[in-house]
Amino acid sequence: MALTAGRLAHVENREAWRPRFADCRARSEALAQHLLPEDQVVQSMPDVSPTKWHLAHVTWFWETFLLLPRLAGYRVFDPAYNHLFNSYYEAVGPRHPRPTRGLLSRPGVAEIARYRAHVTAAMERLIATADAATFRAIAPLIELGLAHEEQHQELILMDIKHVFAQNPLAPAYRTAPLRPARAAPALEWRDFAGGLVEIGHDGAGFAFDNEGPRHKVWLERFRLATRLVTNGEYLAFIADGGYRRLEFWLSDGWAAVQAQGWEAPLYWRRAPEKADGNERWSEFTLAGLVPLDPFAPVVHVSHYEADAFARWAGRRLPTEAEWETAAADLPVAGNFLDGGILHPSAPIADRLTPTLTLSDRDAPHPYPPPRGGRVREGVTADASDRANRDLSASLVPLLQIYGDCWEWTQSAYAPYPGFRAVEGAIGEYNGKFMSGQMVLKGGCAVTPAGHLRASYRNFFPPAARWCFGGIRLAEDG
Amino acid sequence: MALTAGRLAHVENREAWRPRFADCRARSEALAQHLLPEDQVVQSMPDVSPTKWHLAHVTWFWETFLLLPRLAGYRVFDPAYNHLFNSYYEAVGPRHPRPTRGLLSRPGVAEIARYRAHVTAAMERLIATADAATFRAIAPLIELGLAHEEQHQELILMDIKHVFAQNPLAPAYRTAPLRPARAAPALEWRDFAGGLVEIGHDGAGFAFDNEGPRHKVWLERFRLATRLVTNGEYLAFIADGGYRRLEFWLSDGWAAVQAQGWEAPLYWRRAPEKADGNERWSEFTLAGLVPLDPFAPVVHVSHYEADAFARWAGRRLPTEAEWETAAADLPVAGNFLDGGILHPSAPIADRLTPTLTLSDRDAPHPYPPPRGGRVREGVTADASDRANRDLSASLVPLLQIYGDCWEWTQSAYAPYPGFRAVEGAIGEYNGKFMSGQMVLKGGCAVTPAGHLRASYRNFFPPAARWCFGGIRLAEDG
Amino acid sequence: MALTAGRLAHVENREAWRPRFADCRARSEALAQHLLPEDQVVQSMPDVSPTKWHLAHVTWFWETFLLLPRLAGYRVFDPAYNHLFNSYYEAVGPRHPRPTRGLLSRPGVAEIARYRAHVTAAMERLIATADAATFRAIAPLIELGLAHEEQHQELILMDIKHVFAQNPLAPAYRTAPLRPARAAPALEWRDFAGGLVEIGHDGAGFAFDNEGPRHKVWLERFRLATRLVTNGEYLAFIADGGYRRLEFWLSDGWAAVQAQGWEAPLYWRRAPEKADGNERWSEFTLAGLVPLDPFAPVVHVSHYEADAFARWAGRRLPTEAEWETAAADLPVAGNFLDGGILHPSAPIADRLTPTLTLSDRDAPHPYPPPRGGRVREGVTADASDRANRDLSASLVPLLQIYGDCWEWTQSAYAPYPGFRAVEGAIGEYNGKFMSGQMVLKGGCAVTPAGHLRASYRNFFPPAARWCFGGIRLAEDG
Amino acid sequence: MALTAGRLAHVENREAWRPRFADCRARSEALAQHLLPEDQVVQSMPDVSPTKWHLAHVTWFWETFLLLPRLAGYRVFDPAYNHLFNSYYEAVGPRHPRPTRGLLSRPGVAEIARYRAHVTAAMERLIATADAATFRAIAPLIELGLAHEEQHQELILMDIKHVFAQNPLAPAYRTAPLRPARAAPALEWRDFAGGLVEIGHDGAGFAFDNEGPRHKVWLERFRLATRLVTNGEYLAFIADGGYRRLEFWLSDGWAAVQAQGWEAPLYWRRAPEKADGNERWSEFTLAGLVPLDPFAPVVHVSHYEADAFARWAGRRLPTEAEWETAAADLPVAGNFLDGGILHPSAPIADRLTPTLTLSDRDAPHPYPPPRGGRVREGVTADASDRANRDLSASLVPLLQIYGDCWEWTQSAYAPYPGFRAVEGAIGEYNGKFMSGQMVLKGGCAVTPAGHLRASYRNFFPPAARWCFGGIRLAEDG
Repeated sequence: MALTAGRLAHVENREAWRPRFADCRARSEALAQHLLPEDQVVQSMPDVSPTKWHLAHVTWFWETFLLLPRLAGYRVFDPAYNHLFNSYYEAVGPRHPRPTRGLLSRPGVAEIARYRAHVTAAMERLIATADAATFRAIAPLIELGLAHEEQHQELILMDIKHVFAQNPLAPAYRTAPLRPARAAPALEWRDFAGGLVEIGHDGAGFAFDNEGPRHKVWLERFRLATRLVTNGEYLAFIADGGYRRLEFWLSDGWAAVQAQGWEAPLYWRRAPEKADGNERWSEFTLAGLVPLDPFAPVVHVSHYEADAFARWAGRRLPTEAEWETAAADLPVAGNFLDGGILHPSAPIADRLTPTLTLSDRDAPHPYPPPRGGRVREGVTADASDRANRDLSASLVPLLQIYGDCWEWTQSAYAPYPGFRAVEGAIGEYNGKFMSGQMVLKGGCAVTPAGHLRASYRNFFPPAARWCFGGIRLAEDG
Repeated sequence: MALTAGRLAHVENREAWRPRFADCRARSEALAQHLLPEDQVVQSMPDVSPTKWHLAHVTWFWETFLLLPRLAGYRVFDPAYNHLFNSYYEAVGPRHPRPTRGLLSRPGVAEIARYRAHVTAAMERLIATADAATFRAIAPLIELGLAHEEQHQELILMDIKHVFAQNPLAPAYRTAPLRPARAAPALEWRDFAGGLVEIGHDGAGFAFDNEGPRHKVWLERFRLATRLVTNGEYLAFIADGGYRRLEFWLSDGWAAVQAQGWEAPLYWRRAPEKADGNERWSEFTLAGLVPLDPFAPVVHVSHYEADAFARWAGRRLPTEAEWETAAADLPVAGNFLDGGILHPSAPIADRLTPTLTLSDRDAPHPYPPPRGGRVREGVTADASDRANRDLSASLVPLLQIYGDCWEWTQSAYAPYPGFRAVEGAIGEYNGKFMSGQMVLKGGCAVTPAGHLRASYRNFFPPAARWCFGGIRLAEDG
Repeated sequence: MALTAGRLAHVENREAWRPRFADCRARSEALAQHLLPEDQVVQSMPDVSPTKWHLAHVTWFWETFLLLPRLAGYRVFDPAYNHLFNSYYEAVGPRHPRPTRGLLSRPGVAEIARYRAHVTAAMERLIATADAATFRAIAPLIELGLAHEEQHQELILMDIKHVFAQNPLAPAYRTAPLRPARAAPALEWRDFAGGLVEIGHDGAGFAFDNEGPRHKVWLERFRLATRLVTNGEYLAFIADGGYRRLEFWLSDGWAAVQAQGWEAPLYWRRAPEKADGNERWSEFTLAGLVPLDPFAPVVHVSHYEADAFARWAGRRLPTEAEWETAAADLPVAGNFLDGGILHPSAPIADRLTPTLTLSDRDAPHPYPPPRGGRVREGVTADASDRANRDLSASLVPLLQIYGDCWEWTQSAYAPYPGFRAVEGAIGEYNGKFMSGQMVLKGGCAVTPAGHLRASYRNFFPPAARWCFGGIRLAEDG
Repeated sequence: MALTAGRLAHVENREAWRPRFADCRARSEALAQHLLPEDQVVQSMPDVSPTKWHLAHVTWFWETFLLLPRLAGYRVFDPAYNHLFNSYYEAVGPRHPRPTRGLLSRPGVAEIARYRAHVTAAMERLIATADAATFRAIAPLIELGLAHEEQHQELILMDIKHVFAQNPLAPAYRTAPLRPARAAPALEWRDFAGGLVEIGHDGAGFAFDNEGPRHKVWLERFRLATRLVTNGEYLAFIADGGYRRLEFWLSDGWAAVQAQGWEAPLYWRRAPEKADGNERWSEFTLAGLVPLDPFAPVVHVSHYEADAFARWAGRRLPTEAEWETAAADLPVAGNFLDGGILHPSAPIADRLTPTLTLSDRDAPHPYPPPRGGRVREGVTADASDRANRDLSASLVPLLQIYGDCWEWTQSAYAPYPGFRAVEGAIGEYNGKFMSGQMVLKGGCAVTPAGHLRASYRNFFPPAARWCFGGIRLAEDG
């Protein structure tokens, strides 16, 4: 997630900002409070940053964009930090600093805590003492700074999970166990009529600039699965040779499978075979290594895996516009960071999915052919059925749209028509990631509640697996 | 360009097929007739294939999909060729054969000529002797085979150009000199009203399957430049620090610039400095090394470079749908392979672009700000002017839409709504390249005439430079 | 330095072992006492190990080879540590654990301190309580374990220096400043008569097995420089284009210069140019970044650089046998770890080297041609002079033979005639590094005093620079 | 093999030179006469050069070092060839031309034949017309040029074998079949007394400069195997887990086994399993793919494999000095290029080795323990037997010392004491390969007869397998 600056709402009631600011800063620190200093240094791959780097970088943002230009007499904590904690720094030449963040043991954790306290206190002074004109000017930047720090709260958890996963001791981030598995809802399909719709942020409230402008898109009829794909369903894909059968994969995806030896989602571990096939696997979570829950959503798959799974299931991934249209009227609620679970889980539902017995090779394919189209098995639906279908009869509820897993779409991350990056340093790089990445929607179990919107566009390269990516299926209507 | 099978027209008049088939086969052989056997072995990078491999691979297609299943008593020329010349072969394991095509000296050029003659004769027998039912069944495959061989005719020239470019002796593929430079037309802008349009192939005549289904797209108002960007204009970008200024580049593009040391288009060579800046550069062409023509279209730039140039010019690249809408009513004519020039050139025009004197640093920026929007320099156009503009007054002609250069769009190569790959081996990989690549439109100076359509979708990864990619600018309307 | 087991002396007086063991364990811990936990996790390159890994690995040695087989009732501290801290572990397959030691934040520093205390106490119990026969059997293993832990004491300092050097803040390991620079002794040459000599360990006292068997070697007459090459002399090599002139370099060395962009020794930093050339450089040391001392020995050069320097100076590096012959009668004393300087420095001497003024390009070449041979400049000495030379007149003292810098030899690390590796796990890998590495002699400023012998053979690949490698010149006699 | 210039014999009888020169030039051309032009372009890995490059490069040598400086009025054939065919050219910067030799299709084979004829004629003119003083000056250079062209004759065959081996069609270089297998001689051991010996070239006749100076070396008693290791014996090593058992391998060798997936010598191909274990393998030779001959010497193993095999057999490789001492009095005769076999083969002998039945797992280990030392199995010989052994009784003949396979030694390639490179361009790089390579002795089945001497030092990196490296075992005496 790159930092992007949006069309910011003016919020002039400074009393409202004080607790929001204080809560946000405190939440960042709370996320690290059970970690050792040793944990906070490690960078387990170039895309991961150490915990202490995140804690310092978000602090550098406040210092650089708010305190230095706006708080008279502000004393910079340490001038060297501008180089160390500026993620915008672009090395011209052969050495890129990003992959080397894990080589820096200093400043240590205690020193960074002092840096945070210094900047937090100064920000509280600025909020309390800025005159009205200044406050109007900085309020949008405070909102942006909070959204930025929230993004890094999610990254702290994504990244420390990857760090701990490298360790044969499988350390747990949270000490409480995960809640017991419960059956997943039955898989159903919700119809949408399509037509000329509008997507993108409408300007009410905060948004990053990549969410706009709001614009028209033509959609054909489509259907979305009412819940996320489960681990049990994904196991059926694996058991059916999913990772060995070229025909399901995009060309670049197949190359990634071969080059990286993928055989399962990122954090799955194959245990010695048992009689009951469901228990062959365990999954590394922020609560440590646990038996794989067949009803929980599959998570930590790449776009390539999500796409291959969908092809195996005779479906496809939704487009960004389909997803946003479906989500437009739903409340932004779900399994987010604040719930404390820190892992996707099956929602409560009336109709449940039957227990999968994967060692039973005669079990029915979990995905029967779609009503309206050709599927892998060659079944063709009755066209008249399709024409006469009553969309209103299909209003089964959509579950897990927000929270649990970021949902991979089939849409490449690209500028919306009329998109303009914000001027200046904050917006300098807004559009520069709009190449080679795919859009994900809806947030996940480590996203701070309140951070999401229907128009929110997350993006990662199609091979990325350490973000909490999951799968919702779609099909033509 | 991957082989893709389309909705094929039934053409039952077999007499029409004989000369088309014979001409196509003869053209492939003519393309290699001035090459040495030594030239036809070399693979200068993994994406390039040796000439003799192309000549054999298209022959393998006829043998595998037409002769073996349809011609009674057909004798396979050499069973080993199925492995050597099957581009569909996917190595499971660490060794991919594609980058090693250049290691195979055998079968030699003479042997492959015998293979071609054997297959051509058998195909002529099949066309002459098939009963009516068989002929109806194979006519679409013949059409597909011809389109396939035409694609490889273009690849033969793309690839041998790259091979010769590695050689310090700079060998020429064609011995006739390029035609003298002539001034480029003045750069103008053509307005389009947008709205709910349809794109994609409508089913009349042959098309590859990725061109359909035809479908609705909503477009905002937009403008297209009336001609391609010239070498002279691209030189201004270089002179203005284009390759050294991070702010113009997509993040992945900047990484490519650094990693590969790009400083100019692929085949430009910097000669020792002269007083007249325009003559510092030469360009390697299929006619050998020639002085850079400032009026000819810039070619052999990557998508990253095209995008960075557009950003520098205060514009953007067109979308696939914008381009296709603009091209819909134009005749498919231009500087194609059959004209024999084999290099993009300035079209004949009334109003000419002024001579650029790049050594004159006070020369005006070649791209004045657009009428309707913000540009790099911060100029804002008069909104009322925009609202009242008379589109009909803007019907300046679009030049170079077909031929000269493949035009990079800003659209990622993705399936159209409702896209289905053809069943079976021919369609096995139709969709598998729909990830990580960008769409190009319009054909180029080495594309066989008759091969193109408005709906034709070419695609290459954004870093590819050896395809004949050029730049047409667009802007919001 | 690989662990190697030697022909061990029987030392049956167990009272002598107690303080040696306790002192050795305490010294390891003292080396880490001023480091933060954050410092002790970082692995700055694959060859470097984190401090806490070293502290745990040497402890694992005692547990595995002494306590488990010999101390009745010993309780393993944590069974998982055998995998984490066993440097002998060889992954069969694509993942080598060594480069990933820096990814393991757990067990943390405090936990490893508990591990050390547990093992130290058990070892003290074993030493105190073993019966006489057992003690005779384990005394050689204790001696080996002490030598092993001493090796890792040196590695802790080598490695943390490399870690800190990556940090733009340039943290200092030791807080006291280095001692002021003093003039280096004048460079003189000591003659040796050669003949049939013996080298290798003679069996008295402890040695690693690679130091034997003692064996005969024929040596021609040779000369050794009386002191190490200084930074000032190495600056003259750089100023003379040393890193840009192919003719001085071994082929693989030149490839390393190009591939890694070497322009100076590993820890030199070029400061902005000043009027006085000597002050352009600073050097990162364990006391932080200090101005380069022109009289101190050059250190942290690879074998390739040492060899290139020698060729530039018209000399060569000594062979292993020459060095050992020269050192045979000298006391093992010098600038070692226990002196606390932790950096090479100029020895006290009567005749001093003149101050180099490197900005003066007319200064004399610091290395006049050798008496007895051809040099770069083509000077040939008088042969009669050579024949009649009185060796006894040449008995100028050899300085810095021990301590300061490990001295690169021109000898590849190879087995001595009749060499046999020790049987079993301890000796399993004794000979396996005898390929592709070069021998270094004499110890350095971070080698524990008492660890060295004339027969001691250190070895590193010729491109290694983070070991404290320096240069002593030799020439034919 | 790098070009090295030696102390050249003066040979003033110019009539003797004419046929030597003509024969040498003709032999180079004969080696390529059955190749297609396509074959002569391919470079199958960076270490391999195309046939036509070799033919041009040796020609460039004559033009550059003889014709240009010595033949009045000589006209350079093409000035561009100095860049293309100068192996001494060292790119300063990121692009090394060597791996790109295979990208140059021009000049073609016919053009290079014209280049050769032009230079051959001029050289014949020079030899015929030079005045006496000139001829004395150039005779050593002619001798060097002939030795140089002979080296490249061997390289042409080494390299084209590697090229053909990449091709699934397995083309044969020579059309005649290999001679039928015959039983190998029994393995016996020849004793040598060691002592103070002399090795190196003594100055009589031509030698490369790396062969001198002649110098003293002390050798302990040793034994050499009387013949090379056979394929059958190497199969026993493989069957015993040789490539999977870490304990036999040097550390760098084990890394190469893992990284490159070695399971057998370079050109062995595993056929589908049969009842008789000996027939599971075939071997690619210059006569094409043939069943593996268990009695022929194993060839195309790296130094790492040779060393691992020796350790498995309880022996070691000989040192360079041991080999040269043993070979000193033997005639230089054997299976060389001129015999036309082009592959190692078993020599004729009285006592034959018994047939190995590798599918019989109870077969005796082919290498019983050595008389005088510890072996893998822990057997110790009677020391008194060793002391009293009568060396004269052990004068069994040494077979295959010359020809068949280059014999890997355990000696790193290093300068002899007192070595000086020749001055000037010819000697520029003489010593620069004396790092990271191992010495091989004795020539092989594609070395021109007359090219070898006892003092000849070939050298390759320890991982190289495409040179014809084989194994002779040694043990301590």
